[in-house]
Amino acid sequence: MFYAFLKEGHHLYFDKEESFHCIKVLRHQAGDIILATDGKGAKYKAIILQADQNQCILEVTQVVEIEILKKPLVHIAISPTKNIDRLEWFLEKAVEIGVNQITLLTCKRSERKNVKEERFQKIAISAMKQSLRHWLPTLNTLTKCTEFFKIPFSNQNKYICHCQHHTLPLLKNIMQLNQDAIILIGPEGDFSNDEIEDAEKNGYVSVSLGNARLRTETAGIVAVHTFQMLNSFN
Amino acid sequence: MFYAFLKEGHHLYFDKEESFHCIKVLRHQAGDIILATDGKGAKYKAIILQADQNQCILEVTQVVEIEILKKPLVHIAISPTKNIDRLEWFLEKAVEIGVNQITLLTCKRSERKNVKEERFQKIAISAMKQSLRHWLPTLNTLTKCTEFFKIPFSNQNKYICHCQHHTLPLLKNIMQLNQDAIILIGPEGDFSNDEIEDAEKNGYVSVSLGNARLRTETAGIVAVHTFQMLNSFN
Repeated sequence: MFYAFLKEGHHLYFDKEESFHCIKVLRHQAGDIILATDGKGAKYKAIILQADQNQCILEVTQVVEIEILKKPLVHIAISPTKNIDRLEWFLEKAVEIGVNQITLLTCKRSERKNVKEERFQKIAISAMKQSLRHWLPTLNTLTKCTEFFKIPFSNQNKYICHCQHHTLPLLKNIMQLNQDAIILIGPEGDFSNDEIEDAEKNGYVSVSLGNARLRTETAGIVAVHTFQMLNSFN
Repeated sequence: MFYAFLKEGHHLYFDKEESFHCIKVLRHQAGDIILATDGKGAKYKAIILQADQNQCILEVTQVVEIEILKKPLVHIAISPTKNIDRLEWFLEKAVEIGVNQITLLTCKRSERKNVKEERFQKIAISAMKQSLRHWLPTLNTLTKCTEFFKIPFSNQNKYICHCQHHTLPLLKNIMQLNQDAIILIGPEGDFSNDEIEDAEKNGYVSVSLGNARLRTETAGIVAVHTFQMLNSFN
């Protein structure tokens, strides 16, 4: 299955990467019929009109499937890890398990201040296709956590996972069901006390993910899976 | 914290790796007092008697903590992945989240027929220490799945996760609570029909992990976390 970054009328457009893969690697030609998703729930049969390895253009011949966006939605805001592989691993697994939005958070103790957004997007697309999903999560660019905390996000439950107290409630025990959630995951070394206070002032509830000390990327996966386990009953 | 592979009387023994790390990297000397676990629940204060970078020997001065082994226990039997990084990643995360035993399964479609057991052990030790656990999971060597299926494992619930039917029950919906479990995870390309039949004949219940097609290592993590979520209420 291919990913069309744009659909206009009956036309689908592939980006450079996907065009190259389709035309150069898999040697598809004009007239071939293939499967593609727009990352917004739809799966199409489409015929290749312009077999250009830089920008492939197709025409939809059939809507094969519309995947309804499964609610409630989960948004993970996570500090990038020092070792970029760990962050990329988190991204791939979060998409497979089912995340709707990811924001990268710059915290006081974050050791990484930049990420290659294009590569991040590529990993998400690849994980979406591999897991046979048709919704591409929204990936937000690096945001200072102090700024992120101030965004109101009405109608969403807000949680901050950290290890600063021994008596925190477990996320799984207090998560409100059937409601959208934002879950914050801190850097190696955790959120600072000031950050936790700031988050709490802005409506985030402090929670724990359990007694074991989880790495940042593991905590992110556990948060996504906890949300999905509690909210999906099919 | 250090890992002592052997405790005899009041003496602790470090393997080569841990000895090197303690003596050569961290420059500890005879007489220094450090923290160590035996991977069987105990955390000790111990004094270095023999500061040998090949085999460090210590004497226990205090039992700091005994971590009770949390029941029920979960055993994951999983096919090694073609890309070894994915298997190693599974191992690290499974230990962090809480697995008790791992067996590597050679299936018909497994593309990898060997793993470096020593490296596997090292990763498990490192993940145990990093996550502040004091129980080292049992790691079993590569076993043919047809042989593994025949092992009786009485008093354990047995599940095989696969994608061969659309109507399988979800693991989370049928898992029996407060009982030990063995969960099988297949290779890229899934278990073969023969393998599934064979497993079912030997008491394994076919289950699904959801609609998304998960990679082998993701399925392994989801299985461990599903078990822990359902069975721990603290």
